[in-house]
Amino acid sequence: MATDHNGVTVWFTGLSGAGKSTIAERLLAVLQDQGIKSELLDGDIVRTNLSKGLGFSKEDRDTNIRRIGFVSDLLTRNGVVSIVSAISPYREVRDEVREQIGDFIEVHVHASLDELVKRDVKGLYEKALKGEIPNFTGVSDPYEEPLNPEVLVNTEEEEIEESLGKVLAALEERDIIPSGASRELAGVAT
Amino acid sequence: MATDHNGVTVWFTGLSGAGKSTIAERLLAVLQDQGIKSELLDGDIVRTNLSKGLGFSKEDRDTNIRRIGFVSDLLTRNGVVSIVSAISPYREVRDEVREQIGDFIEVHVHASLDELVKRDVKGLYEKALKGEIPNFTGVSDPYEEPLNPEVLVNTEEEEIEESLGKVLAALEERDIIPSGASRELAGVAT
Repeated sequence: MATDHNGVTVWFTGLSGAGKSTIAERLLAVLQDQGIKSELLDGDIVRTNLSKGLGFSKEDRDTNIRRIGFVSDLLTRNGVVSIVSAISPYREVRDEVREQIGDFIEVHVHASLDELVKRDVKGLYEKALKGEIPNFTGVSDPYEEPLNPEVLVNTEEEEIEESLGKVLAALEERDIIPSGASRELAGVAT
Repeated sequence: MATDHNGVTVWFTGLSGAGKSTIAERLLAVLQDQGIKSELLDGDIVRTNLSKGLGFSKEDRDTNIRRIGFVSDLLTRNGVVSIVSAISPYREVRDEVREQIGDFIEVHVHASLDELVKRDVKGLYEKALKGEIPNFTGVSDPYEEPLNPEVLVNTEEEEIEESLGKVLAALEERDIIPSGASRELAGVAT
């Protein structure tokens, strides 16, 4: 039975467009394929289901993160791999959530602002740089990088398989996936 | 291993002071004592962690219930017995949550208004009857009784062991506790 491992929260933080949700979704697919209980709490979905009405002030962002943290804690302590994908720009509340949950892997998904402006998949950076979106993280709102994340991925330099492999290696260390399995599960050519 | 059962949501609905949380807490203690993964989402705690800022209009109450339902669904589908204790006065949103979750036991915790006014543990009914608390369910706000709950307990006539036994019997039917165990676990004299 692959189901009786401990739970853990895998918390993806980073700027909009950096690739958090892309890696998080791949991770979810890999884990579910292995029969490992896992859930993805995606920032956008959570805003619909838990945080409708909240805005993007620091206070509202912190409230949103605390709610995600509350739910992720419930899942984690019941043996689920709870994957969170949320910009979560403020260090203090991320650390608060980390302390609350305990079993916590912080994944900083990094790409430079230049790169993100170049990608601009949703056209948001262009608008934000024109001043059309207030409180846009990285442009008109702060992003406080993790000082000591368990995993740092750089989507500007890495293929997704490499980034995913790093996250899976962290799960391997915690005996959530079998020892030695991370590279193969990530689809890294050997 | 007692951990590999299916999850289920046990949803306690009823007026303030009827005994929802008392039975829910006893149920949680019994299940955890049996090593069964279980969580209690209590209305008051949830209002702090998920729904700060929401009031007691029908719309806000429905939003609160949908949030609890969202979380309870996540727990239930990961094999947890998710116990919810919330007045949840509106039938339509209760049924919406039931449909979303699927594995759902609705427990109507009933006591007459006369009895609740007599108990009035928190002094709320007195204030509500004086008009000092607006939107107080059962006095100045509607309570829509479940039409067909899986379990109906009457705390005006039953000892807590009897009420708890009924809930445990419903869990026995779903193979979450061993067959024949409900009376003993409830502490019913045999």
